[in-house]
Amino acid sequence: MTANTAANDTRSRLLDTALKLFSEHGVEGTSLQMIADELGVTKAAVYYYFKTKDEIAEAVAAPTLHELEQIIEAARTKPNRSAQIDHVLSGFVELIMRQRLLLGLYNGDPGMRRVVDRTFQAPRGEDIRTRMRKVLAGDHPSLAEAISVHVVFTGLAMAGGAPEYANLDDDTLRQNLLAVGRRLLGHPGPKRAAR
Amino acid sequence: MTANTAANDTRSRLLDTALKLFSEHGVEGTSLQMIADELGVTKAAVYYYFKTKDEIAEAVAAPTLHELEQIIEAARTKPNRSAQIDHVLSGFVELIMRQRLLLGLYNGDPGMRRVVDRTFQAPRGEDIRTRMRKVLAGDHPSLAEAISVHVVFTGLAMAGGAPEYANLDDDTLRQNLLAVGRRLLGHPGPKRAAR
Repeated sequence: MTANTAANDTRSRLLDTALKLFSEHGVEGTSLQMIADELGVTKAAVYYYFKTKDEIAEAVAAPTLHELEQIIEAARTKPNRSAQIDHVLSGFVELIMRQRLLLGLYNGDPGMRRVVDRTFQAPRGEDIRTRMRKVLAGDHPSLAEAISVHVVFTGLAMAGGAPEYANLDDDTLRQNLLAVGRRLLGHPGPKRAAR
Repeated sequence: MTANTAANDTRSRLLDTALKLFSEHGVEGTSLQMIADELGVTKAAVYYYFKTKDEIAEAVAAPTLHELEQIIEAARTKPNRSAQIDHVLSGFVELIMRQRLLLGLYNGDPGMRRVVDRTFQAPRGEDIRTRMRKVLAGDHPSLAEAISVHVVFTGLAMAGGAPEYANLDDDTLRQNLLAVGRRLLGHPGPKRAAR
């Protein structure tokens, strides 16, 4: 292992540890010291990678948010609304499956929400949630349509991270989230969508 | 004002202040000292009412959870599933309207979730979420049915507390949450439910 891959490995273990602590204590309830202790390193070693806890929270969230952006952009190239919705829903459920802990945090933890809001606002263009809503509900949705999309996607992310379903195997949870999402969005799924 | 009502008033201001801080910092990111400072009293004054932060979190959550229990019990006396769902949905939306901050916290803050889980489990009988699910989806729902109910109700609570809708007036938000909830639950609302 080169020095470079060893450093990447430590950084990645640090982010895994931070996510675990964030999901147990919230971002604001987690200190750099707690992360260092859990990882078995000194606080100085944590500082080598990140200067603040917010930088850690941003780094924890970044890959998932980036992936969500890519899903939304790819959906825009699909030929019709039905195919666009299905693309976002399938991609979103895959994200949930891989990030069950993180997605629960996004929606509820005030510290994580603040970081996500800051990362994804104005400077890089339209807010990611606005873009997602436009793909799912059109450029000028009614308030009820916008709230429907919000309820279904937030609800899916919360259900995917809920303790009630923590024991389900991945395939079962994935299939049920997809089926529920399709039904709630009034969209029957890829097979019947081709009619 | 008698000494008794003055004490009730302080206790109630303390709980309002705690809720505000919890929603800004999470339960774990809020200290008794922060609550005392925000309230302009000493930490000893806070201790007069509550021995631990968890006691405060329980007291913050208790009235809403109690009301949710009453809504579920009342729903059970309704003649059919459709009327039961509508009773729970209407009551739940009213709770959201009155407790926009608190309901966001329930679903996402790990500290609050821990308190709620502890308060509403075994000793007092069946978990409140289990009872709610049974009213909404029947005694033996399929996994997809149980997840649907979870997604819709969690999503409604999150949307009700979402910053995107914080500027909507109460009537507009209430009507839209009800309409979305009824549509997603496949239930057209009180007028057509009588058919």
